Amino acid sequence: DLISELEGNCTTSTLLHGVRVLITAGPTREAIDPVRFLTNRSSGKMGYAVARAAASMGAEVMLVSGHVALECPAGVRRITTESAADMLNVTSEQAKQADLFIATAAVADYTPTEVADRKIKKNADTLHLEMKRTTDILATIKQEHPRLFTVGFAAETHDLMTYARSKLERKNIDMIAANSVAGGKAFDQATNALEVVWKHGHTSLPEMDKQQLAEALMQLIATQYNQHNK
Amino acid sequence: DLISELEGNCTTSTLLHGVRVLITAGPTREAIDPVRFLTNRSSGKMGYAVARAAASMGAEVMLVSGHVALECPAGVRRITTESAADMLNVTSEQAKQADLFIATAAVADYTPTEVADRKIKKNADTLHLEMKRTTDILATIKQEHPRLFTVGFAAETHDLMTYARSKLERKNIDMIAANSVAGGKAFDQATNALEVVWKHGHTSLPEMDKQQLAEALMQLIATQYNQHNK
Repeated sequence: DLISELEGNCTTSTLLHGVRVLITAGPTREAIDPVRFLTNRSSGKMGYAVARAAASMGAEVMLVSGHVALECPAGVRRITTESAADMLNVTSEQAKQADLFIATAAVADYTPTEVADRKIKKNADTLHLEMKRTTDILATIKQEHPRLFTVGFAAETHDLMTYARSKLERKNIDMIAANSVAGGKAFDQATNALEVVWKHGHTSLPEMDKQQLAEALMQLIATQYNQHNK
Repeated sequence: DLISELEGNCTTSTLLHGVRVLITAGPTREAIDPVRFLTNRSSGKMGYAVARAAASMGAEVMLVSGHVALECPAGVRRITTESAADMLNVTSEQAKQADLFIATAAVADYTPTEVADRKIKKNADTLHLEMKRTTDILATIKQEHPRLFTVGFAAETHDLMTYARSKLERKNIDMIAANSVAGGKAFDQATNALEVVWKHGHTSLPEMDKQQLAEALMQLIATQYNQHNK
């Protein structure tokens, strides 16, 4: 009938019908002073594609996103955040209403120890910027909500699979999707490839369009999530 | 006649007819490693508005721009650059064919002393980032081309006029446009206000739309430039 045909345009399956999916995406911005900040090359494209794929599978999607040049996908709710600390606060609050958490954001590992309230003047030939570790969003959310099915991303330039498997165990999470960023690969590109790792298995998703890749990844996640909740 | 009517759509005056105007705009990106970089809140809007205003006055405009989310204005040529060093090289090369140089870019004052070729791993609780001064684009271009009429921008949170006048003298340039960035003011906003300072005078341009402001500024610059070349 007409209604299911119309719905067919945006809902491709019901694998995640009614499942509340929380997704982080994009970069964070760590302020050095009112003008300068530290950030990274994440465009948010992969996270937004994952959000779109999850929504198309019937999920209720909440996207917690750093500043990106992307529109919020149809049917997805979005909260925009600034720093790693800001993203952690919002994500922690939203996790209370989530069934499945997918952390795609490229979160700063370090943030300046002090933020200058005035623009730093350039009087010295050198400048030492002291930075402290940020709080790990993925590990913190999993600690706060041990039963929340949690999927992490890893962007590494070297030893992809070793880091991915070690991150899975160290953070006690359910799945990891690892992509290589060697030579700017993956950042701001239309295509990507992923190694997806979980406790008792792994799958290689070959290089393809990010939206297709996100759909293949969400199929893997939904399958593992549904097995986990049997 | 029809031709002058058509031209009237994009050329509002001939004050800078045939003058070769070189403009820098937007932020720079200083790489820390393949993933992370230091940047600033410049949207490039003011520089692009100045480029558009200069083109509408009959100038031949070359825009050297950091990464921004803006289209290149009609009739303007653009080269996109990454770091402060990259922007300096391109600007220095382009300055050989310029009559008038307007530096609106928000150039990093400091850049990491070493760039890691692998993504920095987060093993330590703290990280010391050592940075060295970048080469001053405005001062370097003026040294290389003492007769090039040169206009600088200053974005300060405090003591606007004092800094502007001191920058004018220190860098031996012809004009300075100073805007306040206190509390994020000016960055990524549609409006702005400027204090314009030159050797024997100054004018306050009150808060208005950035395009209008750019046109008023270009009128001031063109007047000073034409007097200078009499």
